[in-house]
Amino acid sequence: MLKLFEYNWQVRQDWFNWCQEVSQEELMKKRTGGIGGILHTLFHIVDVEYSWLCVLQGKPEFTEPFEAYASLQQVMELSERFHEEVRSFVMSWTDEMEMKVLTDISPKGEPVTFKHGEIMRHVIAHEIHHVGQLSVWSREAGKAPVTANLIRRGLF
Amino acid sequence: MLKLFEYNWQVRQDWFNWCQEVSQEELMKKRTGGIGGILHTLFHIVDVEYSWLCVLQGKPEFTEPFEAYASLQQVMELSERFHEEVRSFVMSWTDEMEMKVLTDISPKGEPVTFKHGEIMRHVIAHEIHHVGQLSVWSREAGKAPVTANLIRRGLF
Repeated sequence: MLKLFEYNWQVRQDWFNWCQEVSQEELMKKRTGGIGGILHTLFHIVDVEYSWLCVLQGKPEFTEPFEAYASLQQVMELSERFHEEVRSFVMSWTDEMEMKVLTDISPKGEPVTFKHGEIMRHVIAHEIHHVGQLSVWSREAGKAPVTANLIRRGLF
Repeated sequence: MLKLFEYNWQVRQDWFNWCQEVSQEELMKKRTGGIGGILHTLFHIVDVEYSWLCVLQGKPEFTEPFEAYASLQQVMELSERFHEEVRSFVMSWTDEMEMKVLTDISPKGEPVTFKHGEIMRHVIAHEIHHVGQLSVWSREAGKAPVTANLIRRGLF
């Protein structure tokens, strides 16, 4: 579990570095699919990872809008701000937590249950999926994407 | 580990179903980013999953080109053909296999080593990443993508 989070954090940092060589206009440009823009996607990744892990810990979610963080510097700072709390939770993960039940409210207002291990994997897949979208948009912006390879990153 | 493979297999089947409502022309159309097309990406996902798992088992990799499987029916059949072998290996996975060393040859002809657990996670992330690309291209094709959510799939 930890290794896939570590992979996501490395890849996210690589994308932040990638963004530093791209204009604010490209980062904010409205695009087809997903959340509809490069910087907004990175904000969304940071938001969703933190918010779900807050839910698992019974803490309040992050609810601020992208508009309040619409520069690379602000999104990087937000990611950094949340990271210690996220990392600490991921590092303390044990097999016993896998099947713990989370009761949540569905968008329709009905109670739904998830397993904690299910949410953790959802968060992992969420980031990788959105990064796949970044890789298409980077080519549209005329720049090679960050590698998505998990191997050759020194993770193992 | 198994849950993320199962997620990928479900999502892949959802994309195969999605493809059945799309013209061969859209599936084959050259697109920006990644492998450059919807059907070719699905072929690549099937190929890479099977080939890496063959490498871990000391079996010969799959080496046939996309051109030999350039219809939805053929890619679906290929995925189906490989699935039992892939599934059986994933189901037999144990924690002891995580740190087993794989020695491979790099593209430059030099020996490189990986851990088996590293390759397994690479394969998982590989598919999710490429599916993220499909989600952008589906919008370009004017059709809503398959959901990438791991929750609400009955996996847990």
